[in-house]
Amino acid sequence: MPVNLSAPVAAQLLPVAGVSLGIAEAGIKRANRKDLLVIKLDDGATIAGVFTTNRFCAAPVTVAKQHLATGKGIRALVVNTGNANAGTGEQGMNAARTTCTELAKLLGCAPDQVLPYSTGVIMEPLPVEKIVAGMPQAIANLKADNWFDASQAIMTTDIVAKAVSKQVQINGKTVTVTGISKGSGMIHPNMATMLGYIATDAAIAQPLLQEMVREAANKSFNCITVDGDTSTNDALMLIATGKNGVNIDAASRAAMQAVITDVATELAQAIVRDGEGATKFITIQVEGGKDEAECKRIGYAIAHSPLVKTAFFASDPNLGRILAAIGYAGVGDLDVATLKLYLDDVLVAENGGRAASYQEEDGQRVMKQSDITIRVVLNRGAANATLWTCDFSYDYVKINASYRS
Amino acid sequence: MPVNLSAPVAAQLLPVAGVSLGIAEAGIKRANRKDLLVIKLDDGATIAGVFTTNRFCAAPVTVAKQHLATGKGIRALVVNTGNANAGTGEQGMNAARTTCTELAKLLGCAPDQVLPYSTGVIMEPLPVEKIVAGMPQAIANLKADNWFDASQAIMTTDIVAKAVSKQVQINGKTVTVTGISKGSGMIHPNMATMLGYIATDAAIAQPLLQEMVREAANKSFNCITVDGDTSTNDALMLIATGKNGVNIDAASRAAMQAVITDVATELAQAIVRDGEGATKFITIQVEGGKDEAECKRIGYAIAHSPLVKTAFFASDPNLGRILAAIGYAGVGDLDVATLKLYLDDVLVAENGGRAASYQEEDGQRVMKQSDITIRVVLNRGAANATLWTCDFSYDYVKINASYRS
Repeated sequence: MPVNLSAPVAAQLLPVAGVSLGIAEAGIKRANRKDLLVIKLDDGATIAGVFTTNRFCAAPVTVAKQHLATGKGIRALVVNTGNANAGTGEQGMNAARTTCTELAKLLGCAPDQVLPYSTGVIMEPLPVEKIVAGMPQAIANLKADNWFDASQAIMTTDIVAKAVSKQVQINGKTVTVTGISKGSGMIHPNMATMLGYIATDAAIAQPLLQEMVREAANKSFNCITVDGDTSTNDALMLIATGKNGVNIDAASRAAMQAVITDVATELAQAIVRDGEGATKFITIQVEGGKDEAECKRIGYAIAHSPLVKTAFFASDPNLGRILAAIGYAGVGDLDVATLKLYLDDVLVAENGGRAASYQEEDGQRVMKQSDITIRVVLNRGAANATLWTCDFSYDYVKINASYRS
Repeated sequence: MPVNLSAPVAAQLLPVAGVSLGIAEAGIKRANRKDLLVIKLDDGATIAGVFTTNRFCAAPVTVAKQHLATGKGIRALVVNTGNANAGTGEQGMNAARTTCTELAKLLGCAPDQVLPYSTGVIMEPLPVEKIVAGMPQAIANLKADNWFDASQAIMTTDIVAKAVSKQVQINGKTVTVTGISKGSGMIHPNMATMLGYIATDAAIAQPLLQEMVREAANKSFNCITVDGDTSTNDALMLIATGKNGVNIDAASRAAMQAVITDVATELAQAIVRDGEGATKFITIQVEGGKDEAECKRIGYAIAHSPLVKTAFFASDPNLGRILAAIGYAGVGDLDVATLKLYLDDVLVAENGGRAASYQEEDGQRVMKQSDITIRVVLNRGAANATLWTCDFSYDYVKINASYRS
């Protein structure tokens, strides 16, 4: 079950002027399930995104990047679940293009003003005819106040939908940011099997928007991992409609970035809290490194260790496994005698071994919590990194041994 | 249960002249369990080894390396299970040195002619007094024909003991090679939580012996992974007693290397077959890469993917997960359109997607086997790599969630 994560409340999700969302049950993998989402943008909106680095990236990722590169105004996004359209070769590219062409016809725009997204099983042909057949239903459903249903329509193995709204005052006006995300397994930075869509009613020029979505991703979705698998389909998109008349410039950029990063971080953490089989949410803080890269390397070695993750599942303070993971993280000149390991406020290890003050019952007390912080103080520099992950349970194996069936 | 792996047969394990082995029940972690092994070498034996690269390497690893570096003849090895003496700081170093000093007294050699090894729980103080108390029992038990008991004495979470003997004719004489290993979890190259001891009655000068153990490790123990965790305690030692009068030189090196590598490979594969919770033994062949490094990178991306491993556990040909792992292996210029993926003899993917000839029932047939080969043909060079791994089951989680208790 998700760790300290509640479903979003529809009434708390704020519409973003200039964005409307429509949902359909297209029967892509199963009947009677919301599996198709169309996001329609008013003319004048800007959009930017970051995508998976997987070389087997899905056809819709390739097509979305091509359409973004034209520099034309994007008028719609179309998202299907149930099929990733990845590992599908030329046939998959044709299916992604057909999706755009058919939606463009219905909306009266050009095909390259539509961006496609898919998530689900890899290496199965996309049932594009079902997607096209579902489009009129989604278009008929288009409305601004539809973020809650949209967050449900993009779920795959997610148990809980993920959606966040925040507001900030900029130049005396209220700026709204609303976002949704999906993801539960195959979660790794650069990026996770996650899709994220964040929109604001502020006006942000495209080059700046691209910088802002990259920075938000680096502080949020690129700091989470469930199982270390980088998906073929990840995308985080940031939309700025400009409908509220607030133009983001150098002076207001920091405030705007902060709220976007906040929304992205909450959406990213929700993915970990809903990680497949997760019973614990683990924050890993690595401090005092020479650079951020080595802090992240140590953090991910801990986060990816099945031995660490199963010990957390068992609430067993078998904390030597964390030391082992720090040791094999690949930081060649690391001096293990100078680092300190904490579990929440409990000093576990120093001087290359267990701290003299450490009591098993203190470790046990922290391990029983559902939210736990592992803190590694390297004492060799000024760089830090924070990552978020979850534990590894029977249910992770169960979910992934039966995902297709 | 171990995958197609039988326990060694005592009568098939050949003594190596110049090596005697003694076992004791020292009660290190539990009573009534073989947990202490002394290997005594006759004067004149050479020895070489490779060790974990983990920065949190255990105290005995550090001490063994220091003693090897003196260049003195090594007269004994002492191995305990039940406690890794890793993450134990200065106290752990003292405990490892005390172990050597006390055994040296009993055997009449210098402390730095003894090499210590430990395996078990990390970050717990080594009960050195129990080890010392058990030494007389182990010494009284010393005999040449004791490899079978020795293979049992070094087990931790292993279900089946691991031991292999082979013989080869060199210069008209019979050369014997016998080895034992242990390991089941925290298995990753460079190296696994594994200990391996291989001895031959041939004479091999130390510098050559070091080259030969390195080469054997690179083709065997450095090609296996269970869970991607690199242990703090790994060691593979190669002993040459010279008792049979065969001196290995440039002319006979290849034949000798072949049999040593064969023994090491069989011992390494046994570790994977006995991998924690394993139900399938998976060979990953990556062919046609630009260099061996990229072949290994792709092989390990597949081998470490929890999604791939759980699909194999379920016998579910959800083979797109293999494509995803290939795609995120970090080979930046990989052209996914030119590679081919096979499961045993079944062509699964080509041209960036599922092969036209692929039938789900063919994939299903192979997935149901207990020994499976994943073959990736990159078609971009002449380099190859072969790795061995296992699947990821409920029992892996169960074993590692309860290992300490």
